[in-house]
Amino acid sequence: MYSRLYRTTERFHRPEILEAAKSGAAFLQKFARVQASSGPGKCAFCLTRDGRAVKVQRTIFSECFYVMAMDELSRVTQDKEMQADAEGMMDQLIFWVQTDSSDLGRPQLPGDLPVNSMAVPMMLLCLVDQLTEGRTDVAKKYKDLSGWCVERILQHIQREGKAILENVTLNGKELPGCQGRLQNPGHALEAGWFLLQYALKEGDVQLQKTAVDKFMEIPFHTGWDEQHGGLFYFLDADGHCPTQLEWNMKLWWPHCEALIAYLMAYSHSRKPVLLERFKLIYDYTFTHFSDEEHGEWFGYLSRQGEVVLDFKGGPFKGFFHVPRCLYMCEKLLDALLERQNS
Amino acid sequence: MYSRLYRTTERFHRPEILEAAKSGAAFLQKFARVQASSGPGKCAFCLTRDGRAVKVQRTIFSECFYVMAMDELSRVTQDKEMQADAEGMMDQLIFWVQTDSSDLGRPQLPGDLPVNSMAVPMMLLCLVDQLTEGRTDVAKKYKDLSGWCVERILQHIQREGKAILENVTLNGKELPGCQGRLQNPGHALEAGWFLLQYALKEGDVQLQKTAVDKFMEIPFHTGWDEQHGGLFYFLDADGHCPTQLEWNMKLWWPHCEALIAYLMAYSHSRKPVLLERFKLIYDYTFTHFSDEEHGEWFGYLSRQGEVVLDFKGGPFKGFFHVPRCLYMCEKLLDALLERQNS
Repeated sequence: MYSRLYRTTERFHRPEILEAAKSGAAFLQKFARVQASSGPGKCAFCLTRDGRAVKVQRTIFSECFYVMAMDELSRVTQDKEMQADAEGMMDQLIFWVQTDSSDLGRPQLPGDLPVNSMAVPMMLLCLVDQLTEGRTDVAKKYKDLSGWCVERILQHIQREGKAILENVTLNGKELPGCQGRLQNPGHALEAGWFLLQYALKEGDVQLQKTAVDKFMEIPFHTGWDEQHGGLFYFLDADGHCPTQLEWNMKLWWPHCEALIAYLMAYSHSRKPVLLERFKLIYDYTFTHFSDEEHGEWFGYLSRQGEVVLDFKGGPFKGFFHVPRCLYMCEKLLDALLERQNS
Repeated sequence: MYSRLYRTTERFHRPEILEAAKSGAAFLQKFARVQASSGPGKCAFCLTRDGRAVKVQRTIFSECFYVMAMDELSRVTQDKEMQADAEGMMDQLIFWVQTDSSDLGRPQLPGDLPVNSMAVPMMLLCLVDQLTEGRTDVAKKYKDLSGWCVERILQHIQREGKAILENVTLNGKELPGCQGRLQNPGHALEAGWFLLQYALKEGDVQLQKTAVDKFMEIPFHTGWDEQHGGLFYFLDADGHCPTQLEWNMKLWWPHCEALIAYLMAYSHSRKPVLLERFKLIYDYTFTHFSDEEHGEWFGYLSRQGEVVLDFKGGPFKGFFHVPRCLYMCEKLLDALLERQNS
């Protein structure tokens, strides 16, 4: 985050920002990776202050963030070794995902059939988008992977195009039970803008339309709380109650992803309905999650919109969704203004 | 549950109840255990309908419930092999817990220091109580273990006797950070009645007093929501917000454990304040979790007491806390009436 801001945004191009980025990367390179028999190995999800691993998740997300961090900083410093570090970790991730590998530490269980969980192809597509930016050689290397990610993401369009489901089978069918019926509107919206960004870059008009019509319109119609406003965290495609206790809470991050999605879609198509969606989410977000009087923001609201967890950060997802949202929206709004004035 | 009801409660002493218990046990014996290099091995937390393991938790709780089930049914059927199966699994559990063993499948990480989590000694004490009922030879075998469990549970009394903390160090000190400050009032109350039951059996007057004064009074004073009624799910000992998103919800199971705790404590001491506590919890429980008009009960309420998850069962804890609570309270109330009438 510091590296990206330093590299791309004038007011953050300050030595202390770069120093903070370098310190973070040095810490991660020194301590984040836990030993493995071969390859770069797993990254810890959580470390003690002095760098001892506390927790390793049986997913790929810690490694994804490691790749993002190393790639960004290496673009600033032109550090080839760091760039190779990012790509090495990326190649390991691809191997894990495409072989559904037990290296992730999950026991192989006969009833635990492999699932196409939306998070995986969308994170990989996000990584490819970043790694290939301005690098034609790298873009070539990951061309097949992008196609694979898009295909896997599109498998989540289910029920004759009327639902985006969070988990499907590896051949794109609905899974039985509550796992199969699960919807995560914020996640669908995030996948939506990853897809749109990719489709715009590729000039793929059909995919642009799918990104907006399926991954942005459906989550709004299913996910927006007509009664109290805001996007639900989880929903069940049959209208049952999700099994996640926190299903009806309003979280900051789905609203962040919605803001980016609708503003990106509007910037591209200029359809007024998309700007209206952006405005609706914007108004809810900045009147409920943000306390401008005290210069504070909050992350977790009840369904009714009251702050129910008032800490900053917490064990999950601190300095990521919020600054990415503000950064992306600022860039999109700047571009809109520029086009208006030119 | 079926075995216990069949064995101890006249109106459930019916062949179809026994058959249900036997079917459950046969399924578990055939399918629940996943292969391990030595010993009885881990039990699956979740299986497909036809018995294939879906999930294995890196904790001891699936195995604890396996022990409870096999012990109960073997008491009805006098099946010595099943009794040995229960004890074999119990001995493995003790080994895992007392050696903090990596057989549970947790990677050994340098920053992940072993923690005395209240759930572990309290579950083992509950198992010992059950396994030793009416069996002096087994009681002898597990005598040291009971003492070890009690000692480990008492380590959770912290802050000069003013707080029950859910996680402490192995030598009974408060852990740093939010993990150390975590309070779970329902869990403390459950530990309270396990301790009281044990102390009554042992004739340990001091421990009886500690069970009530510390594990029942403190969770009430810290855990009862003065504003909306009901017991909070999680709290922070310093009054910060817990990091669990569902912290302020009102769940059925902590109220179940509170009902048992206060009724057991009242039955023993006849102190009116304990009956008042029971009545308060009872009134909240049966006006909020239960819809008598439709003969339904619900498991999960918002802080304000509205039903927010309306399914029965779900992935966690179905047919256990509720029937145990009703069963225990009925037994305790019957005994009170009997003493009154004699």
